[in-house]
Amino acid sequence: MIVSHSTGQYEILFQPVQVPDGILVTDQNVYRALPQLFAGRNPIILTPGEQTKSLGEYGKLCSQLVERRATRKTVLVAIGGGVIGDLVGFAAATYMRGVPYVQIPTTLLAQVDSSVGGKTAIDLPEGKNLVGSFYPPTHVQIDTSLLRTLGSRDFRCGVAEVIKYGFIQDAPLVELLRSEPTTLQDPRIPDIVRRCVEIKARMVQEDEFETTGLRAQLNFGHTIGHALEQITGYSVYTHGEAIALGMIVETKIAEKIGFADLGFTAEVENVIASHGLLFRAPELKNSDRIIELMRKDKKSSSGELTMSLVSRTGQCALMPNVDQMAVREVLDEY
Amino acid sequence: MIVSHSTGQYEILFQPVQVPDGILVTDQNVYRALPQLFAGRNPIILTPGEQTKSLGEYGKLCSQLVERRATRKTVLVAIGGGVIGDLVGFAAATYMRGVPYVQIPTTLLAQVDSSVGGKTAIDLPEGKNLVGSFYPPTHVQIDTSLLRTLGSRDFRCGVAEVIKYGFIQDAPLVELLRSEPTTLQDPRIPDIVRRCVEIKARMVQEDEFETTGLRAQLNFGHTIGHALEQITGYSVYTHGEAIALGMIVETKIAEKIGFADLGFTAEVENVIASHGLLFRAPELKNSDRIIELMRKDKKSSSGELTMSLVSRTGQCALMPNVDQMAVREVLDEY
Repeated sequence: MIVSHSTGQYEILFQPVQVPDGILVTDQNVYRALPQLFAGRNPIILTPGEQTKSLGEYGKLCSQLVERRATRKTVLVAIGGGVIGDLVGFAAATYMRGVPYVQIPTTLLAQVDSSVGGKTAIDLPEGKNLVGSFYPPTHVQIDTSLLRTLGSRDFRCGVAEVIKYGFIQDAPLVELLRSEPTTLQDPRIPDIVRRCVEIKARMVQEDEFETTGLRAQLNFGHTIGHALEQITGYSVYTHGEAIALGMIVETKIAEKIGFADLGFTAEVENVIASHGLLFRAPELKNSDRIIELMRKDKKSSSGELTMSLVSRTGQCALMPNVDQMAVREVLDEY
Repeated sequence: MIVSHSTGQYEILFQPVQVPDGILVTDQNVYRALPQLFAGRNPIILTPGEQTKSLGEYGKLCSQLVERRATRKTVLVAIGGGVIGDLVGFAAATYMRGVPYVQIPTTLLAQVDSSVGGKTAIDLPEGKNLVGSFYPPTHVQIDTSLLRTLGSRDFRCGVAEVIKYGFIQDAPLVELLRSEPTTLQDPRIPDIVRRCVEIKARMVQEDEFETTGLRAQLNFGHTIGHALEQITGYSVYTHGEAIALGMIVETKIAEKIGFADLGFTAEVENVIASHGLLFRAPELKNSDRIIELMRKDKKSSSGELTMSLVSRTGQCALMPNVDQMAVREVLDEY
């Protein structure tokens, strides 16, 4: 599949991994789980977890590239989940003002979401993905056989994004998940992954720089989800758990402001529950802090709240100026 | 003057400054010297000096942008020399994956060089400008009346770049500097600045991403100059002093390898001397370390030395695989 950006195009390959020449960057978990990818190579191995997407780790990675005498022509190869992909992508975008890089996503989350679209980023203490760039890889290799070593919690983490694609753009995908929840052993996985990648690739092509609101739909569940991740220091919920909860809360808000029909939240909640992603987050009670964090979201400007809300399955819109009272009421109820 | 890049175009305005709306970023020296630019505004004021172009200061600046609730639409306004321009440009390139910014260069160096071309960068402990991006400003305002408050050492710092433009591309400019050295009071300054900006704008348009070697010519004097700045921790020589010396040493190397005629170095040296930029740098004796640093230069790949060398006034080329023995001999002699 070819994805076209203003600066050129790149290919998403659905095939068994072929690790290219270059400097490999991964984390300890991936290195242990998929040793065959690193045979005879000398990868840079980072600590797993969101904490690695910091300015400090970014600086250390760049310094290691200097130490290994990486030039402007050196290819960086990101082998891992979203953290590795985002960090290595940002390093590639900025090291010597830009070097080529390849994405080999090893988690469901990274395969259906973060490896596609050319977004790279790291976090600031103030929030997630606050610095970064639009910098597409040379190519992406998606090999669903790599997912076999995933833990079930990591797998569910990606399922949350799959569910998101269904609700924002693909009603038949929601039906498919409703008819039978997906699992790690599900033979439908290659098709499901490809379907999600196609949706994302289409959306990012049509709205490369997030100016039309289309790409912002991908943020469904993420406004609340990011705030929840941040308030808990990224240590309590996985990204998928946070956005699963975010989708439910945001749909409640959509109901509250009359954008979604009453009862629609229950539909969203059922799909999420059948995939083992339903739980309570007492941290949402801290509505002042949650709203403060939502205001710092990249979609918002000048202090009002902007959210991507789903009105019914397969239909999503970027909603500016969401009523803060409604948000507060939903958070207090939840 | 309009400068066209692949991502769009921007204007370089030669006019009295009109500070636009947005968040102003400057340093303490500029804030004190040009208070009229900041009246009624609340600028972010940074510490002057190359040390400010660090990852740490970049992170602090981005955090301040979050604190001031800067959104994707907020304009950053860089008012200062090359350090402020490069750092603010990199923050603009990456904060929320890119916000607009305006360059208002207040030094001769920044007016003739760093504010033009869309290059942004910060330093790593391992070297200067090792991370950054190509990210053009919305527009650049060049007002030579701002230069009146410059100290003479800072002025000379910019003169070194002016001399460079002459030697790489503009023999008549070298003649003009030879006929009468330029000074802060020189009525020819607006013309000289415009001439240099035109050369640079043309070169960066024709070789936006530094792929043809044309833009690399702007690096004449900088391979040695950067190494000298680095070995002295950016605290002994100004950038202009370092590249003035760099131009002399690099021309000696060009002579040594037979690329320039014997005696050409004396011509370069005379123009540099008449502008008060000639002196000795005992640090160059440390040829092992200098060559090691030159190898890490962005122009070099896989360990060989690549340099932009001038064969005669107005004629420059990117020379790969420069003989290391020749470099060592010149350094040892100097």
